[in-house]
Amino acid sequence: MLILIGERINGTYKDIGRAVKNRNPEPVRDWALRQAGQGADYLDLNVGTLSSDPVEAMKWLALTVREVTDCPLCFDSPDPDVIRAGLEIGGEGSIINSCSAERGRIESLFPVAHKFGARVIGLTMNERGIPRDADSRMALAMELVAAADEFGLPADDLLIDPLLLPVGVAQEHASEALKTISAVKMLSNPPPRTVVGLSNISQRTFDRSLINRTFLVMAMAVGLDAAILDVSDDSLLDAIATARILLNQEIYADSYIKLFRSRKQDRQSP
Amino acid sequence: MLILIGERINGTYKDIGRAVKNRNPEPVRDWALRQAGQGADYLDLNVGTLSSDPVEAMKWLALTVREVTDCPLCFDSPDPDVIRAGLEIGGEGSIINSCSAERGRIESLFPVAHKFGARVIGLTMNERGIPRDADSRMALAMELVAAADEFGLPADDLLIDPLLLPVGVAQEHASEALKTISAVKMLSNPPPRTVVGLSNISQRTFDRSLINRTFLVMAMAVGLDAAILDVSDDSLLDAIATARILLNQEIYADSYIKLFRSRKQDRQSP
Repeated sequence: MLILIGERINGTYKDIGRAVKNRNPEPVRDWALRQAGQGADYLDLNVGTLSSDPVEAMKWLALTVREVTDCPLCFDSPDPDVIRAGLEIGGEGSIINSCSAERGRIESLFPVAHKFGARVIGLTMNERGIPRDADSRMALAMELVAAADEFGLPADDLLIDPLLLPVGVAQEHASEALKTISAVKMLSNPPPRTVVGLSNISQRTFDRSLINRTFLVMAMAVGLDAAILDVSDDSLLDAIATARILLNQEIYADSYIKLFRSRKQDRQSP
Repeated sequence: MLILIGERINGTYKDIGRAVKNRNPEPVRDWALRQAGQGADYLDLNVGTLSSDPVEAMKWLALTVREVTDCPLCFDSPDPDVIRAGLEIGGEGSIINSCSAERGRIESLFPVAHKFGARVIGLTMNERGIPRDADSRMALAMELVAAADEFGLPADDLLIDPLLLPVGVAQEHASEALKTISAVKMLSNPPPRTVVGLSNISQRTFDRSLINRTFLVMAMAVGLDAAILDVSDDSLLDAIATARILLNQEIYADSYIKLFRSRKQDRQSP
């Protein structure tokens, strides 16, 4: 069953960037409630680049969200200190977003994940960048799986992200990412999970929603487990509800789209 | 690249059923031109069940279509004589729709395919019906591949149809069909192709187009080669154009949807 991680509380969006800078809770609360109401299983939190004090900013962001919803959190930062600050508030079951397959990153983040009982998004990239093909991505995924074992992380607490790039710029990466998602299931038993940052694929394209939802259901067909996405995009949610039916993950009913939405609201209200 | 087979010239639709019965060419010509204009690579022809003379009806149907377009044809009948009558007009490169994995059917249709240089849609069903799971479908697909070899048919002139059933009635079949499509690629080298009769999956559901396009792009993600479908459904064509981009089968351009449509019209006008 696809895990939905709401992307919107991210300082690279102007409203959230300004809210973080000015410690204005309203836009943060609004997006937290809206995404939880649309059925987000997690809320991604990213303080952006405007803060001079990202650690304090993440604490404020997480506490502000906690005022209105107990939806689990996904701490999104390149800085391990910022992630740790988030985990102190989010606790067990939070997600660390993210850790590349570089040894230094693994050594700094996997012990933290173990300590807090957090899941980790592991990126199939290292100091040499993002590989072009699925085989090289798989080699990095294997390093991440080995690291999970080494640091005592359950395999299914590792979410492998094959890294989506804008299809208009790096088109061949989309199909290689699909191959990676499919192949990751063979890596271990139990296998790691897979995740994508969906909106990346449609950056600077003209019909972002169409490209997003088309890629997402293709990825679901090859076994995708989670996605960071725009849960306010209704046509994306309709596509997910339909893919769940076609994958036999949910019992068909004529009203399955309505049921998908109402079920999620039951689960997520604070 | 997905082969599009237009489904609409089928006697089970009332307008075509009546046109065949009364030998009224207008609705047939209209749908032939419309589907070719929407980019159909083949037109499926089915005389329906109202004709007392299905062999003559198929000849008339094929000749009527031939008056307005040279789009290749797919002869859709349970009766080998009706198919043979179509092939006399359609000739090399036509498609026989369809042949189950029953020995009697294979012995009657595969030699005809070989004689005319036609492709064959091979159904993963036999006298015992449609198997529930992908493994049993694969056993029947293997029999069809062996038969193609026995009767001198190139493997890639065989299109394996895993058989879609209405998702509201036989839900588990959808994901088993996806598994079958993915597994068929491993059967031989070169492998047979795969095809689905798309609209079956959404019969008696409330949003047929959403279910059709969602299943189709999922099937494309696991390697589907061809589909019999409603080429007049624009949202379905948009989804196909997008999946082609994401599978790196077509170069991305901001205007890719427009390009997909205009390209097809160039190719298909009579």
